[in-house]
Amino acid sequence: MIKVVVLGAGNVAHHLIPAIQNSSVAKVVQQYSRSFSKNATSSIPQISNIDDVANADVYIICIPDDAIASFSAKLPKNKGLVVHTSGSVPISAIDSKHNKGVLYPLQSFSKNRSVNMQEVPFCLEVKDEKHFKMLKTLANGISNHTHTINSKQRKALHLAAVFVNNFTNHIYKVGEDICKESNVPFNILQPLIKETAAKIEALSPSEAQTGPAKRNDINTITKQLDALQNDTHKEIYALLTKSIQESYGKKL
Amino acid sequence: MIKVVVLGAGNVAHHLIPAIQNSSVAKVVQQYSRSFSKNATSSIPQISNIDDVANADVYIICIPDDAIASFSAKLPKNKGLVVHTSGSVPISAIDSKHNKGVLYPLQSFSKNRSVNMQEVPFCLEVKDEKHFKMLKTLANGISNHTHTINSKQRKALHLAAVFVNNFTNHIYKVGEDICKESNVPFNILQPLIKETAAKIEALSPSEAQTGPAKRNDINTITKQLDALQNDTHKEIYALLTKSIQESYGKKL
Repeated sequence: MIKVVVLGAGNVAHHLIPAIQNSSVAKVVQQYSRSFSKNATSSIPQISNIDDVANADVYIICIPDDAIASFSAKLPKNKGLVVHTSGSVPISAIDSKHNKGVLYPLQSFSKNRSVNMQEVPFCLEVKDEKHFKMLKTLANGISNHTHTINSKQRKALHLAAVFVNNFTNHIYKVGEDICKESNVPFNILQPLIKETAAKIEALSPSEAQTGPAKRNDINTITKQLDALQNDTHKEIYALLTKSIQESYGKKL
Repeated sequence: MIKVVVLGAGNVAHHLIPAIQNSSVAKVVQQYSRSFSKNATSSIPQISNIDDVANADVYIICIPDDAIASFSAKLPKNKGLVVHTSGSVPISAIDSKHNKGVLYPLQSFSKNRSVNMQEVPFCLEVKDEKHFKMLKTLANGISNHTHTINSKQRKALHLAAVFVNNFTNHIYKVGEDICKESNVPFNILQPLIKETAAKIEALSPSEAQTGPAKRNDINTITKQLDALQNDTHKEIYALLTKSIQESYGKKL
């Protein structure tokens, strides 16, 4: 049984701890947080002084990106593997006294929304190959989708995730704004949004692309630009249309 | 039983015909197309001369947007209701000799991808109220989601659909490009894409928004802009970041 200490009490820790406890390969033996919420009840021993940290096989740092380096320096040197869970932080950010690794779950976590962790892709990296087998065993216990990804690839994945998650969600917001302006309920678009996401399980985004920009339908493009009331929405429409036309070999 | 003639043989007709045949309220009695594919077998009588059109209760025009007006002028005057299926064309485009209506299925159709029509929202409009009941009965026979939407609202919905469908799909393409540049398989992002779409069934896009732009994390924004290799991708990143910051009350 792999003994795990979870360092942090945010969204990632919130989803990771039950997933580890439900696995047959690992067990969370302790959780550290500077402060725990008063009402939180947990069967896991909790500490708020990092010097009280227990012996474990894996230490999982689940704290904000910019605090990882300094926090890992304060974490006492130990025999275990010290991993962070960030998409954008390189493995080198972990203090060099530790055995280093990364366990990056590529999903958007909210505290009040459950996620099936077996479906979440986990990206794994270790500094020293001899620690890989244990990290892989731990990840396979949590998820059915594990990938070996180095820091450079992870940085690219995280950037791509900003597009397909943060920017896509903002495009939904623009759609909602347009609906509001004309008193149409946004939820009429829900099945289209779902189908757009589902389609690229079977087709590449290039194969799935449709619409006036792809068809180079200048008449519709002009009318739709005209109909947009918000200047930033117009800019987004024009830029994404230009980008689609560039992607499919047409010039404006 | 509502007798229907389908005019056209494209993607919309392809999905609409079986949905009507499976309904208990309507039946397709004839299909018109300028030319049918040679291998197409159909139990529905087919015509290629518009003057041979049968008597029916509803005529559904499923042809490209810019051909609807002239085609409806050529369609012989009859007692039935003549509807088009376009999001962006006003009801007024249908020739004034006809009883006019709109039956707009708000979904992205591809010939080689099946769609559950019962889940597709249908937007209904009629010129003369006395035809509404029949159109509503027909639509309810096909789908569980019907909405009364006028031409102005439909135009807004169609524009919002360009954002959440065409532009979102292009954002996926940018994500795929970024993955390719770093040799990471794009399908690792699939669960995140699905969750991003699923999330806004429970949360509004504003509630679901996360990421460096929303947090106003200038450090990450600068690094990610730097990391992007394609100038158009940089422009998209900068503009959508600006738009998110404007939406949530932050200035760049």
